[in-house]
Amino acid sequence: MEDPKHHVVKPYLVTRSLQPENQETPIQFMESDSIPKHLFYRRNHFSYPKLAYSNYFLPINGLVTNPILVSLQTILQLPSRTVEIVLECSGNKRSLFEPKVFGEQWKKGAISLGVWKGVPLRSLLEVTGLKKGAKEVVVEGYDFGERSDLDKVFSYARSLPLEKALHPDTIIAYEYNNQPISFKHGHPLRLIVPQWYGMASVKWIKQISVIASDFNGPFQSIDYQYYPNQDNDNGAYPVTTIHVNSTIQKPLDMAKLNTGTHVIKGIAWTGKGKISKVEISTDHGDTWVEGKLSQYSSNYSWVSWTYDWVAAKKGMYSIMSRASDSHGRTQPMKPVWNRNGYGYNAVDRIKVKVE
Amino acid sequence: MEDPKHHVVKPYLVTRSLQPENQETPIQFMESDSIPKHLFYRRNHFSYPKLAYSNYFLPINGLVTNPILVSLQTILQLPSRTVEIVLECSGNKRSLFEPKVFGEQWKKGAISLGVWKGVPLRSLLEVTGLKKGAKEVVVEGYDFGERSDLDKVFSYARSLPLEKALHPDTIIAYEYNNQPISFKHGHPLRLIVPQWYGMASVKWIKQISVIASDFNGPFQSIDYQYYPNQDNDNGAYPVTTIHVNSTIQKPLDMAKLNTGTHVIKGIAWTGKGKISKVEISTDHGDTWVEGKLSQYSSNYSWVSWTYDWVAAKKGMYSIMSRASDSHGRTQPMKPVWNRNGYGYNAVDRIKVKVE
Repeated sequence: MEDPKHHVVKPYLVTRSLQPENQETPIQFMESDSIPKHLFYRRNHFSYPKLAYSNYFLPINGLVTNPILVSLQTILQLPSRTVEIVLECSGNKRSLFEPKVFGEQWKKGAISLGVWKGVPLRSLLEVTGLKKGAKEVVVEGYDFGERSDLDKVFSYARSLPLEKALHPDTIIAYEYNNQPISFKHGHPLRLIVPQWYGMASVKWIKQISVIASDFNGPFQSIDYQYYPNQDNDNGAYPVTTIHVNSTIQKPLDMAKLNTGTHVIKGIAWTGKGKISKVEISTDHGDTWVEGKLSQYSSNYSWVSWTYDWVAAKKGMYSIMSRASDSHGRTQPMKPVWNRNGYGYNAVDRIKVKVE
Repeated sequence: MEDPKHHVVKPYLVTRSLQPENQETPIQFMESDSIPKHLFYRRNHFSYPKLAYSNYFLPINGLVTNPILVSLQTILQLPSRTVEIVLECSGNKRSLFEPKVFGEQWKKGAISLGVWKGVPLRSLLEVTGLKKGAKEVVVEGYDFGERSDLDKVFSYARSLPLEKALHPDTIIAYEYNNQPISFKHGHPLRLIVPQWYGMASVKWIKQISVIASDFNGPFQSIDYQYYPNQDNDNGAYPVTTIHVNSTIQKPLDMAKLNTGTHVIKGIAWTGKGKISKVEISTDHGDTWVEGKLSQYSSNYSWVSWTYDWVAAKKGMYSIMSRASDSHGRTQPMKPVWNRNGYGYNAVDRIKVKVE
């Protein structure tokens, strides 16, 4: 007997490493809606932490008037905020840099879109109050491990400047796509920072501390810095806001196509404002036409775009997409090279052969 | 409560296309034993066929003395043969060709190893007998679809020269790794042709015919030919035997490593004889040392190899592996470029940074 489920064809996460687990979303094969949790990209610095959920409390301390220990129950009872956001690893597209850079060779799928629900960090800081001199809010995760460069064990921890920490859309999330956040994505509580690259959205929150200075943990002061030079650290500056960017989903790179009309489609996103236009070139950047944008589903989501391309003549074509945002930012033709390979956002490009 | 299964970290198939389904084995993350069926690479020319297994009979006809219709039951009762073989898509590593070629951009995972059980095709042809003039045996699958280059519908079909068809290890398989072959890999019957690239191992066998001439179906005379030239078909010759080859599994390409000893490991395989040695270079091919080979698990399997590399000095390294077989074939430094990108077998190479 034929079993129809054997015919199901589906994409999977793309494995970059297993220790720690780093896998990307098969972005070329996703529709533009929310990414289901099992296909949400996974990016870890360490092996998964071991948590005892039965006794989970969140401490908020440091330069606050009233340090607190909040229970999960309390957090679930506070007024919630829901945000649909693009979460993008700052190493997304790293493999495209020339000269090539070392590290996880992310292609175009270290990015996902979905809906997070939680309590604004701001609401909790209103409960604790802030002491004079408060400058940054440090969020520490339960994940930890040895850094061989420093020969020492560190927790994963990141800070936000007060302004970002107090933004009403910066939330302590407990749900993803209407379900409790899955373990691998930060259960029970995960910081969600819209418009910033994913390193800011700390998983498995262990502690929140308010400090008076610039946080200098290694995941802030060593990693997640743009180093413009190969041989020295001069001119380094921190990775924060997501760059304006786009990705072609169809056709696939190096595809063979027939003559005729083909839909070129993709996504575009930015960490500042909204995407204002996406231009497509089918002649290696000589001429550009505007693609058709889908409606924004929320302030922080990506937009889908399409362009109906009439491939009349046989030959090889270089297809590019170039997004611009409402802050006047446009994808550059060449990426801003940096030694650790963060923030790649050059015009996206593929090649196809019409035959 | 913490659920340990949420911590399971595993690799997945790597999606190249969904229509038809083409997905590769995450070869960097596999141990050297048999590939489990869910991670066996999938390579299809068309969408999956619809079969009515309840009434399955295999016709063998053409230039035979006694044409027959064999039931599955009969096939299962005949003396069986079991072969452990490397099955490799001839497009494996296509994405590495320079200049790049169009088509599915297989990386290094269009290859799998496993145990197939079935009845030798020879046994069936002994039942039918061969008429004088018999030259090739054509095996047709149930999968079919339109070829846009010919504007016509074709079944997937391939032929074998008599000598290969009559080899006792060329089998009509019904089991993979001790289970009935899964639907996506050719259930109920699949031709298995050891030492030839995977296109010969026709899935979902519909019919076997003996013919007096060279088979000229499009998957034989158009596809699966090496075309040495970009602009014309001169000098074309058919894809048959697997080339001598090797793949580095560890470290990962572009990995950052500490100073110290690292195990470089990988696999090597060939379609002629056995792997006689695998040499490794950690200085971009200037000097070579022999890796340690594992025991062969069967005549047609791949071998694993390892080399303990002492990375004493910081810096960037180009690591290569070069396999040789018992027929005196050695992987070349440069692949033999061909327009459709078949049979890539240049020395495998990765880069790492020791810091």
